[in-house]
Amino acid sequence: MSNNCEVLTLASLCEFLKTHDNYVILTHANPDGDTLGSAYGLKLGLKKLGKRSQVVCCDEIPHKYDYFIDDSDCDFIPETVVAVDVADIKLLGDLYERFEGRIDLNIDHHVSNTMYAKRLYLDSEAAAATQCIYEILDELGVEFDRQIANALYTGLSTDTGCFKYNNVTAHTHEIAAKLYEIGIDAGEINRIMFDTKSKSRVKMETMVLNSAEFHFDDRLMLMAITLETQRKTGCTKTDMEGVPAMSRSVEGVLAGVTLKETRENEFKISVRTYDPLDASAICGKLGGGGHKAAAGCTVLGDLDYAKAQILSAVKEALEELDAGANTTK
Amino acid sequence: MSNNCEVLTLASLCEFLKTHDNYVILTHANPDGDTLGSAYGLKLGLKKLGKRSQVVCCDEIPHKYDYFIDDSDCDFIPETVVAVDVADIKLLGDLYERFEGRIDLNIDHHVSNTMYAKRLYLDSEAAAATQCIYEILDELGVEFDRQIANALYTGLSTDTGCFKYNNVTAHTHEIAAKLYEIGIDAGEINRIMFDTKSKSRVKMETMVLNSAEFHFDDRLMLMAITLETQRKTGCTKTDMEGVPAMSRSVEGVLAGVTLKETRENEFKISVRTYDPLDASAICGKLGGGGHKAAAGCTVLGDLDYAKAQILSAVKEALEELDAGANTTK
Repeated sequence: MSNNCEVLTLASLCEFLKTHDNYVILTHANPDGDTLGSAYGLKLGLKKLGKRSQVVCCDEIPHKYDYFIDDSDCDFIPETVVAVDVADIKLLGDLYERFEGRIDLNIDHHVSNTMYAKRLYLDSEAAAATQCIYEILDELGVEFDRQIANALYTGLSTDTGCFKYNNVTAHTHEIAAKLYEIGIDAGEINRIMFDTKSKSRVKMETMVLNSAEFHFDDRLMLMAITLETQRKTGCTKTDMEGVPAMSRSVEGVLAGVTLKETRENEFKISVRTYDPLDASAICGKLGGGGHKAAAGCTVLGDLDYAKAQILSAVKEALEELDAGANTTK
Repeated sequence: MSNNCEVLTLASLCEFLKTHDNYVILTHANPDGDTLGSAYGLKLGLKKLGKRSQVVCCDEIPHKYDYFIDDSDCDFIPETVVAVDVADIKLLGDLYERFEGRIDLNIDHHVSNTMYAKRLYLDSEAAAATQCIYEILDELGVEFDRQIANALYTGLSTDTGCFKYNNVTAHTHEIAAKLYEIGIDAGEINRIMFDTKSKSRVKMETMVLNSAEFHFDDRLMLMAITLETQRKTGCTKTDMEGVPAMSRSVEGVLAGVTLKETRENEFKISVRTYDPLDASAICGKLGGGGHKAAAGCTVLGDLDYAKAQILSAVKEALEELDAGANTTK
């Protein structure tokens, strides 16, 4: 498929956008701040150039993004299909079959992009896809306004944990500075995106924290999200995101383990580690895998059994570590 | 006192720094990332100009800041006293009496600065004091290195909740971009500053969340940190910071209330509100006060009594609000 994908420069991309019209802009499923900020930022920018477009997503768009949503001017016959922040066509979810082979342009920042579209503009150095959209609109000479700037800032901020993660570069901050100069509601946006939790999330967090155990001289923290917890708190899939990160945020903890009961007697185990522990090696012992700092595996059995399995795998890794430390002394 | 305080421009400040030497750099008590980043950033910068300085703080410096601490070259007779990020001389804590009337220069970003020093360089638009230090060192022609950049970034990041709060401006991001260009360990710094909790903090949070109550159609969230919680978890004053913010981070909550037992039968109550609720008016009913979005009061009595008092005050405010909403309909 990659042989048929033309890789565009910023200049050739802008030429394409100028000479086409009547866009359908696709976001990925489970839409987040970056795919939505990119889609609506692009739509609002194209509108300034007198072009029509509509944003299409297979899932409902959460109301917290209302401040940059613009669903006006959608009454036209679509001609040009653009996917934004969609690294793989399968990420379109239910729109996959409808648009397979029909995507004219893909604008993305994932190094893992599968080149499924006819044309691709990729900036894998960009911390967020909205960072690409900013540069495209700037190159096109679009006059930015507050709504566009808010959309682009939302992607920048949410994809970087508010400028906290390692994907941030000098250029990310430079673009943030330019968006501030246009005028944005950054304080309010960040409050909504980072400091607002649902009540069910708070209740779930409480039950999960109550389940916390520390082992091996507090070098391991373990938490469980059982089916009972999910039932009692009514927490959604979104509510459960980020729990594995909690397990690794305690001082001195080298391995954070979260057991999520996916159905009766089935646990999906997430392991987060710090150097020199290797999460992937630990999960590998139980038939799973992943990256060095974040990996996973599935264990069949009840909670006590699943706990015993993962505790034993981490214990082994810690013992190897201690033995290594003793040898090098 | 303010009559004797000379307000300096950036140029005159740099002239002062160039023509003096053997600095004592003072930070405020309970030192945070900004006062320490400013002090050590300035010390490291002055060192590049061949000048000697030492940083002095009345409290112990937490080890998490070790990556920019430099306590070399402190063996000299002090000549020039500089306070950084210290808005009021009383904030020097135990150093107050020793340095009263003896502070030659104050570099600060607080609009509330009391002008206690002989000279003041104040940039109240700056999100962090390290933002001022960056500009000073840049003006002095200092060749920045990674350690200086890490110190300055730490202040910028910690004083803005990692670029999350309303005090951030385009200029804050511009300086962050310049620090990235010099080379900084931002991902690791932010992990230490924002994503690392002590075990006692986690245990305290768990107990506090267990105490959570929702009232008035979930428009109020109430949490308690009792003496028992403090004893059982061994949490420190630092561990307890930020709990009132937790109470206001739940969707739909207009008033977040935290009751902290300060001694047997004494509760310090923190109230955080969103528009149009007025925290200051609510606390005023119980003899306290503060700002519109954040206020406090003290209630004598047991937990049930303190709860009843604050619940009644918030209920009244919500009823006034509902009545107002009905009138304007």
